[in-house]
Amino acid sequence: MSEPQVLVFDVNETLIDVESMSPLFEKIFGDARVMREWLGHLFTYSMTATLSGLWTDFFTLGQGLLTMVGDIHGVEITPEDVDDVKEAMLTMPAHPDVEPGLAALSEAGFRLVTLTNSPSNPGGRTPLEHAGLARYFERRFTVEAARAYKPAPQVYHLVDQSLGVPPSSCFMVTCHVWDSVGAQSAGFSAGLITRRGNAPLPVAALPRPDLVAPDLPALAGLLIERRRT
Amino acid sequence: MSEPQVLVFDVNETLIDVESMSPLFEKIFGDARVMREWLGHLFTYSMTATLSGLWTDFFTLGQGLLTMVGDIHGVEITPEDVDDVKEAMLTMPAHPDVEPGLAALSEAGFRLVTLTNSPSNPGGRTPLEHAGLARYFERRFTVEAARAYKPAPQVYHLVDQSLGVPPSSCFMVTCHVWDSVGAQSAGFSAGLITRRGNAPLPVAALPRPDLVAPDLPALAGLLIERRRT
Repeated sequence: MSEPQVLVFDVNETLIDVESMSPLFEKIFGDARVMREWLGHLFTYSMTATLSGLWTDFFTLGQGLLTMVGDIHGVEITPEDVDDVKEAMLTMPAHPDVEPGLAALSEAGFRLVTLTNSPSNPGGRTPLEHAGLARYFERRFTVEAARAYKPAPQVYHLVDQSLGVPPSSCFMVTCHVWDSVGAQSAGFSAGLITRRGNAPLPVAALPRPDLVAPDLPALAGLLIERRRT
Repeated sequence: MSEPQVLVFDVNETLIDVESMSPLFEKIFGDARVMREWLGHLFTYSMTATLSGLWTDFFTLGQGLLTMVGDIHGVEITPEDVDDVKEAMLTMPAHPDVEPGLAALSEAGFRLVTLTNSPSNPGGRTPLEHAGLARYFERRFTVEAARAYKPAPQVYHLVDQSLGVPPSSCFMVTCHVWDSVGAQSAGFSAGLITRRGNAPLPVAALPRPDLVAPDLPALAGLLIERRRT
């Protein structure tokens, strides 16, 4: 891979902890595992909207999918449940390893930005701000500006075009293989953090991540080591 | 909606029963519910490949995802497991309501074709052939010809272009909302069969199916009724 100058961070699950929403799904469905089912649909349907040339924001989609998943499980979703899930999406805490990892990378001289499927939150705090992480980042991009979701290439190119750098100088940091595949297909390099519920995908026709690590400090160590050699 | 002339059937789960694979997942993972998790990833990653401009066939993707899901659950996947899943994908039985529904629609004079994400199976039988359903269909399309997956619009247009009909004369029959959204965005009309594990998606910016029914004979009844009035 090229020497990365700009580290582009996915936010949901990579920096902030989606498992924090599990107790809410336990309360609504009597089964915390439904959180992962709903989250999987959220990824699938964001891609569906983009492939279909349509657009609706990530939180609105997440709320509609809650009703769909309720229907599938025979659970009636109340307006309070919908509000609770929106609130939960806005207020996930940072993973404990994130701040030390960001501090090490910032110290090492990398430029740090975010690129998230979540919308901005006019008049309120974004999930990144709520988690206390916003101050580490030079720029915070959301896919809204492209009216398309990851892993569409034009979404990644929001970053390189806005910063005036070539895609090859950008390195995606994500815990989702679909995100590393998309970033690499747009000319970025990529590192995969294997957070709980995530693992590499061995399929010959799809790009493998350039680096794989169990948490952000470990990935930071690999990036800093490469820069030194 | 326009008067549909050509009914375009999704195959996996709409005509043939994916739940038949659950005992295999129970055997491999000790938990039949992992089948739905793997299937959700199969849809997500087929869309990821298409959004990224890449191509690999549905069965190869399904086998790689089995290893990924094994990694997530801490279960080592053997070459026998991979073979068993490939075999299971090729040999799912028809849902019991399918043959009476197809017979009624054929009798009523509709043109019937299929459009599936599954590849052809040179030298062997396709899932549709194995399930004994192939004889009902004038043409059987797979997405391979477009080297892209549903719900990309060019995949649906394989059907209208090949048959020399306008998209508006085509009606997609599917149990997957992402498939009805894609078909409708390509100019088809669409009917949703709410098979187990599937339900409508109430999101204002996405098209709703023109018809919704619990099984194929019920959907056939609605289509035949419309034709009469």
